[in-house]
Amino acid sequence: MSVPQGTFTVRQRVYYHHTDAGGVVYHGTYLDFMEAARTEFLQVHGFDLAELAARDAVIFIVRGLRVDYARPARLNEVLTITAEVAKVGFASLDFIQRVIAARSDDEQVLLATGRIELGCVHPASFKPVRMPAAIRTKLGLLP
Amino acid sequence: MSVPQGTFTVRQRVYYHHTDAGGVVYHGTYLDFMEAARTEFLQVHGFDLAELAARDAVIFIVRGLRVDYARPARLNEVLTITAEVAKVGFASLDFIQRVIAARSDDEQVLLATGRIELGCVHPASFKPVRMPAAIRTKLGLLP
Amino acid sequence: MSVPQGTFTVRQRVYYHHTDAGGVVYHGTYLDFMEAARTEFLQVHGFDLAELAARDAVIFIVRGLRVDYARPARLNEVLTITAEVAKVGFASLDFIQRVIAARSDDEQVLLATGRIELGCVHPASFKPVRMPAAIRTKLGLLP
Amino acid sequence: MSVPQGTFTVRQRVYYHHTDAGGVVYHGTYLDFMEAARTEFLQVHGFDLAELAARDAVIFIVRGLRVDYARPARLNEVLTITAEVAKVGFASLDFIQRVIAARSDDEQVLLATGRIELGCVHPASFKPVRMPAAIRTKLGLLP
Repeated sequence: MSVPQGTFTVRQRVYYHHTDAGGVVYHGTYLDFMEAARTEFLQVHGFDLAELAARDAVIFIVRGLRVDYARPARLNEVLTITAEVAKVGFASLDFIQRVIAARSDDEQVLLATGRIELGCVHPASFKPVRMPAAIRTKLGLLP
Repeated sequence: MSVPQGTFTVRQRVYYHHTDAGGVVYHGTYLDFMEAARTEFLQVHGFDLAELAARDAVIFIVRGLRVDYARPARLNEVLTITAEVAKVGFASLDFIQRVIAARSDDEQVLLATGRIELGCVHPASFKPVRMPAAIRTKLGLLP
Repeated sequence: MSVPQGTFTVRQRVYYHHTDAGGVVYHGTYLDFMEAARTEFLQVHGFDLAELAARDAVIFIVRGLRVDYARPARLNEVLTITAEVAKVGFASLDFIQRVIAARSDDEQVLLATGRIELGCVHPASFKPVRMPAAIRTKLGLLP
Repeated sequence: MSVPQGTFTVRQRVYYHHTDAGGVVYHGTYLDFMEAARTEFLQVHGFDLAELAARDAVIFIVRGLRVDYARPARLNEVLTITAEVAKVGFASLDFIQRVIAARSDDEQVLLATGRIELGCVHPASFKPVRMPAAIRTKLGLLP
């Protein structure tokens, strides 16, 4: 597989704390990798999650997710994690994310694919709130 | 909601290390809770994951999963996590799992539902292998 | 070794999510085990951490810790974790904690020892505050 | 404080999965940050932990550690983590590590200091083994 030009990516080396006794990355750790990529994606588009919580009283929570695991990730290899917006709603934001390893020159191997469905809620009540218009507009216009 | 009689359950208090800065349990932690419940489920049916790996050269890996989050889990409350076999294949095993809180007498609140799809693989090669017949027979006959 | 009569203990099976690619429990996971034991210790003495935060505006934070690892903990074994108060101050509380495995009848093996030094702070400002007198009195009088 | 010229450092943004319900980074997460920095430190000096395990039958385990926490790390800030060799033995390697936040131009704030004591063991038996001479020589000669 290959990552399309322009896709947002972050890189992450696999450390011992990401792995389990199976010798490879623990299945739950992929959610951490994906969270990191989404946070960096929002950051480069100008949205800081700590500011959103403190100033706008909005936090993103995970409402649902689907992950398919294709191949295990090995200790110490450097992974690429993608983040692409799949759908923007008034109070929801869905991402498609991939975890990819570069196993040799020119060969990229897909390890896992996730669809992560976020909702906007108030930080105290956890009641749904509208996404700030600036985010909705900006993310809705992304290619 | 109520958990049907005979459903396998484990209990787990929510500690700080399960939570995140949103003030509630981190979405990835639910995978740990569910893993614990599946392990205990297999254990009470006579299957020890460490023995399976060492003696039978079989480990269960997660091939895919879907989780739907309904309500957040709070610090220090005691959760109930269920594990039910949804489907038994020759080299696969799917579970349906729920995370439930007892918020008052007689009231049980569903926090999350997961479908966790496992596959049997060789511990070294990660190639698919058949599930030991004893497990398949026993789990396939569960109500 | 043997745990002295009357020492507070909790039990915890080792799951995959506790381990790393070394095949045994990850060194950081011991801090989670110890946090769980301290929380249960406080709970049985009548102190609920969520209530303390919400009602008394006090949270315990870790100011420092020392852990010595003697032997690795294996997948699927059931560990005993102890919690004993070592020192009670006006705004501090130190615990001595042990992680122990029962490797055969009558043989208990010490895996790790920790000294965990807590401080009381305000949940918003993180400024030191006095420990509620009820806790200080009760814990200071423990044998 | 300021980090001396030439000190090895890595950078890490704080994500939700690093934090707890106290609103700041969980005390155990600092061990993950420090593990990442040590791994990158060894990597830049030519030592790959996965290769060491597979080819040389040596893994580094944590024998003991001391961490002192000075100030909490906040969601979404970018931390600097240092790794410096404190002591090289025949089968042991101690690091001093710091976690630092840049809270304003020119101001670096020390959040935590750790001393992490590693030992070399065989990956299967966990019995102590000598550190490969190449590592001992190289690390022993570092300034």
